Amino acid sequence: MDILVGVDLGGTNVKLGCFDERLNLLCKTSAATRADMGPETVVARIVESAQTLLQQNGSSLEAVSAVGIGAPGPADLTEGIIIASPNMPAFRNVPLRGMIEGRFRRPAVLEYDANAACWGEFVRGAGANVRDMVFFTLGTGIGGGIIIDGRLVHGCGDAAAELGHMIIHPGGRVCGCGQKGCVEAYASASSTASRAMESVRAGEESGLKDILDKTGEITCRDVYEQLAAGDGLARRITDLTAESLAVACVNMLHCVEPEVIVFSGGMIAAGQVLLDGIRHFFHKHIWSLKAEKVDICFATLGEDAGIIGAAALANEKRRQI
Amino acid sequence: MDILVGVDLGGTNVKLGCFDERLNLLCKTSAATRADMGPETVVARIVESAQTLLQQNGSSLEAVSAVGIGAPGPADLTEGIIIASPNMPAFRNVPLRGMIEGRFRRPAVLEYDANAACWGEFVRGAGANVRDMVFFTLGTGIGGGIIIDGRLVHGCGDAAAELGHMIIHPGGRVCGCGQKGCVEAYASASSTASRAMESVRAGEESGLKDILDKTGEITCRDVYEQLAAGDGLARRITDLTAESLAVACVNMLHCVEPEVIVFSGGMIAAGQVLLDGIRHFFHKHIWSLKAEKVDICFATLGEDAGIIGAAALANEKRRQI
Repeated sequence: MDILVGVDLGGTNVKLGCFDERLNLLCKTSAATRADMGPETVVARIVESAQTLLQQNGSSLEAVSAVGIGAPGPADLTEGIIIASPNMPAFRNVPLRGMIEGRFRRPAVLEYDANAACWGEFVRGAGANVRDMVFFTLGTGIGGGIIIDGRLVHGCGDAAAELGHMIIHPGGRVCGCGQKGCVEAYASASSTASRAMESVRAGEESGLKDILDKTGEITCRDVYEQLAAGDGLARRITDLTAESLAVACVNMLHCVEPEVIVFSGGMIAAGQVLLDGIRHFFHKHIWSLKAEKVDICFATLGEDAGIIGAAALANEKRRQI
Repeated sequence: MDILVGVDLGGTNVKLGCFDERLNLLCKTSAATRADMGPETVVARIVESAQTLLQQNGSSLEAVSAVGIGAPGPADLTEGIIIASPNMPAFRNVPLRGMIEGRFRRPAVLEYDANAACWGEFVRGAGANVRDMVFFTLGTGIGGGIIIDGRLVHGCGDAAAELGHMIIHPGGRVCGCGQKGCVEAYASASSTASRAMESVRAGEESGLKDILDKTGEITCRDVYEQLAAGDGLARRITDLTAESLAVACVNMLHCVEPEVIVFSGGMIAAGQVLLDGIRHFFHKHIWSLKAEKVDICFATLGEDAGIIGAAALANEKRRQI
């Protein structure tokens, strides 16, 4: 049997899944990345993980037909090179695709982690029945992916779909990227937490003050928990989060008009209240010239989106050869 | 010889050009649209224009191989139907492509006017050497076009690339579309003029006050003329115009990462001062994480972009049959 391997390489953990040709998950595993040990060691650990996993499931590396890797950027995707990575400082100009191909002796494909997860949701998740899709990952930062007419948009220099860095408040809050007024500066999990802390420190009344006093910080989860408890500040903070994401949706609708806009990432654990908020503000901000039919929803594959998407991309690569 | 006909159908005038297979312009003409006389009459006038023009140039309708039409929307481009048009109220659910095909007895293609002009600049103008391009038309409103990997982006319902309606100031100035804070509400020719009139009426000192007093209005051209004369208010007004367009450029860079962003339309008559302003504010707002190489420039084909693009699209259609 031909087995597709999907790898989701993160700064902390590397996830790995084995799939059949129809992208059914056969088995999966996760291990510490140990990026500090350098690219050679990381690649060796990935190969060992795959080998152990396959042996445990009555197969072997020989059965692998192609490997897909989702990884943080910036990268040269055409050449398969990770140029740099804030969470993996040892990875500078690393020809990751070639290294994986050398060790597996099979064709491999390198894609951005957000794009791989986007592709996973497109082929097996929330976008499985559409041709045009926009994808946001909500976590410490905000990443994105765009699929037009069934193809991932990469841009002329592999830097497209940096959707968290669309500016919606020129001159506004400073973003980690150096710009001011980015969507990410208002709507990421860490921005949501930061805005709450700033408000509490500025003297606003809130149940969040106790949390800050006790723990020294406020997390995004705290904010949504206080929202559920009826806290007024938590309501204002989360409203701005939802409104910022809604404006990003309006802008993406006017840019590429997807059939579906999918939100994913750790922050969607906030649940229906987040999705309802985004939809509410979307309808507040969108024009009424024509009925807009875009579906705004949550991702459905959870943490498996990255390995599924990477395996699906590996499958496409295999077919092209 | 095979002749391609490119039509640029506007609410006031219809432009028509005849091209050889290599898209060299052979001859062109322009006439009043007379949209009030209804679609049948407009189509008959287009055919007569083409016939007269071709005869004057020693050819005939028989030599035409395909026809491309750029027209205002909203439209169903797949079916070739103009759904409605603010400037042509008599055009409601008009199967324009079929009518043109029937009269010319040749294949035809219908495209939005902004997309046709975008395609013209892509094949023969400012984007002739790239694969990824974003295009803005600056006039009474702001239109757009997006080309990714050599293909126009239409969206799932033919409503993509409405780039003037990206929101950059949520809750800001009311736009003609009903949204608040659109790029168009700050940076179109009419918005530039409106903001100037509002400021003068609010008592701001400016050479523009004399113009408003004498003529009852201020035009976008007046604002740029006063800018050239050193007027302070004109500087502030045009700075916000340029900054709004620059933010739109930043956002498009992060969305689709084009190689070139092209500005076209009547407003680029303002000249280098407008282009320099957009570039200045672009570099102010864009991140410095990596060197962004996008070229921001003006269109080069002037009013012919629409007929060239329409003819080029006709040529593609002809090849596909």
